[in-house]
Amino acid sequence: MQARMKHHQLTDEQICSLLKTEKTGHLATLNPDGSPYVVPVHFVYSDERIYIHGLPKGQKIDNLTQDARVCFCVERMDGILLDERPCDVNTAYQSVVIKGHAKMISDMALKNTVLRHIIEKYTPSLAAAPLPEAAVRGTGVIEITIDEWTGKYFK
Amino acid sequence: MQARMKHHQLTDEQICSLLKTEKTGHLATLNPDGSPYVVPVHFVYSDERIYIHGLPKGQKIDNLTQDARVCFCVERMDGILLDERPCDVNTAYQSVVIKGHAKMISDMALKNTVLRHIIEKYTPSLAAAPLPEAAVRGTGVIEITIDEWTGKYFK
Repeated sequence: MQARMKHHQLTDEQICSLLKTEKTGHLATLNPDGSPYVVPVHFVYSDERIYIHGLPKGQKIDNLTQDARVCFCVERMDGILLDERPCDVNTAYQSVVIKGHAKMISDMALKNTVLRHIIEKYTPSLAAAPLPEAAVRGTGVIEITIDEWTGKYFK
Repeated sequence: MQARMKHHQLTDEQICSLLKTEKTGHLATLNPDGSPYVVPVHFVYSDERIYIHGLPKGQKIDNLTQDARVCFCVERMDGILLDERPCDVNTAYQSVVIKGHAKMISDMALKNTVLRHIIEKYTPSLAAAPLPEAAVRGTGVIEITIDEWTGKYFK
């Protein structure tokens, strides 16, 4: 059981680094009946907020428009730490769980900035490509304001 | 925009295969105040249910004990599908989103079976190792009964 006690807190700096590096996060929202809903998303961490882009409609957007409370988590799984006793096997990881509030943004300048950050993160070879105004307008951008975060790691 | 319309439904067989293959899932539960909470977990899919093991206490267990409604998602990200127009870039993926109800299980025979499945999935080299009763008793096992699942893919 001793191995299970080695979970540590990440510093804010380590959390920022994890949010900058990792490519997939998971966004949990609330369905109209109050049940949870979670989906994988691409995201950027910028200006102390999380931004997610995608289609301008869908279940997660309907959900967060009705109830802004969300949870967002990002982790890096570094593999299994084997032990000859199955109960002492563990997983090396870093994770951050964010409690926050989400909304759709409509400001075109901010949407442009966010989409540029997303292109730089995911497809840097397209950094110089034009972003037509109609495309920016037609893209949904979610902004998560961070109320609280908890970062942990195990190694 | 055309590229965005190529999302397809996974068959039940493809969903089962994804659940058997992938190693990390995300479990969303409800906090006491009704806000969502999501964390990464290891899991097995067995007998048409999802099983998750871990410490016998913690926020997700407190949550699902109070409100059994959960959402569980699993995905495989197969990489970025580049296009010279940033708005036509997409991601190849397979995902399943499960709506269900969760509870802790206490039946020792079932816990044993689940933990054996977990060992076979994550650490097959330990398949023959003993599982002391005290260790099984001290491990928390969550069972998710699946009410509904939605599988999608893009390629």
